Amino acid sequence: MQAPDASTVPLPPDPETRLRAGDHTALRLWLRLITCTNLIEGAVRRMLRTSFDSTLPRFDLLAQLERYPQGLKMSELSQRLMVTGGNVTGLADQLEAEGWLTREPVPDDRRAIRLKLSPTGRRRFAEMAAGNEACVIELLDTLSREEQQELLRLLGKLKPGLAERARRAHHTGDGKK
Amino acid sequence: MQAPDASTVPLPPDPETRLRAGDHTALRLWLRLITCTNLIEGAVRRMLRTSFDSTLPRFDLLAQLERYPQGLKMSELSQRLMVTGGNVTGLADQLEAEGWLTREPVPDDRRAIRLKLSPTGRRRFAEMAAGNEACVIELLDTLSREEQQELLRLLGKLKPGLAERARRAHHTGDGKK
Repeated sequence: MQAPDASTVPLPPDPETRLRAGDHTALRLWLRLITCTNLIEGAVRRMLRTSFDSTLPRFDLLAQLERYPQGLKMSELSQRLMVTGGNVTGLADQLEAEGWLTREPVPDDRRAIRLKLSPTGRRRFAEMAAGNEACVIELLDTLSREEQQELLRLLGKLKPGLAERARRAHHTGDGKK
Repeated sequence: MQAPDASTVPLPPDPETRLRAGDHTALRLWLRLITCTNLIEGAVRRMLRTSFDSTLPRFDLLAQLERYPQGLKMSELSQRLMVTGGNVTGLADQLEAEGWLTREPVPDDRRAIRLKLSPTGRRRFAEMAAGNEACVIELLDTLSREEQQELLRLLGKLKPGLAERARRAHHTGDGKK
């Protein structure tokens, strides 16, 4: 693939530019969270493309299969993916054709198919996962170990309330995207 | 629109489930960042739908126009949007038809069109922005003011290096998604 002319590639937008002088700290914090998340995600996507000729949806799918050595049904897999976009079936077809995974019938459900990493897929994924970890370690290394722990703690304090809210919305049928 | 059966609506996946014992703090932190960002974004989307019958791409587009009273060319607008998906032209067409914005020719560029919020659009957007701010304040209120400041500071320490890296990738033509 040819690299596009740099001038045609928009820089990732910085959501914080939306802020105005009197905006509340919480709003500022939310936009900074998106900014950092988008920037890290962009760097991880570039690393996957450059070092592994791969993409985040592929990595994400393989990462899920790696966690379940017994395999996952297509429906289970779809639910676990964090990256949307790209249909899971098409992606799984490609990865199967390239030897990353295998499909097996599910004994107790004749219509279902279980996907598993192939031994080759498992070995190649281990390299990608190591590349991903090294990339993320480097991306976050402007923070000391203590600062990373503090950030982890603060986000950990935030998360349960957010997750509970998502669960409630889900159970009232208001959880659709 | 009818609410789907709750059982058919998957809960938002928690990327932290990808972690394994022994994973580095940085990886844990990165996955927690995505988790929190996804959860907040989901709650904001639900609020926009429930309270304003609107969407995040619409809100994002209007928020950009609100910052530029002199209007934005379509190309400038596209570059500033943080939400991908949904083509900008189609979205702008809808918003114009609904009276949110107007189109004007650009005097020094005969092929370009400048988009501006209409007075009505400006007034209605002010309500959405207030709703958004109230929602985000509530979502983050499990953290004290001091904790929010600390989180802001830590993310602020992380951001410049990430932004610099994105700029470099951009200038070497490696910035495409």
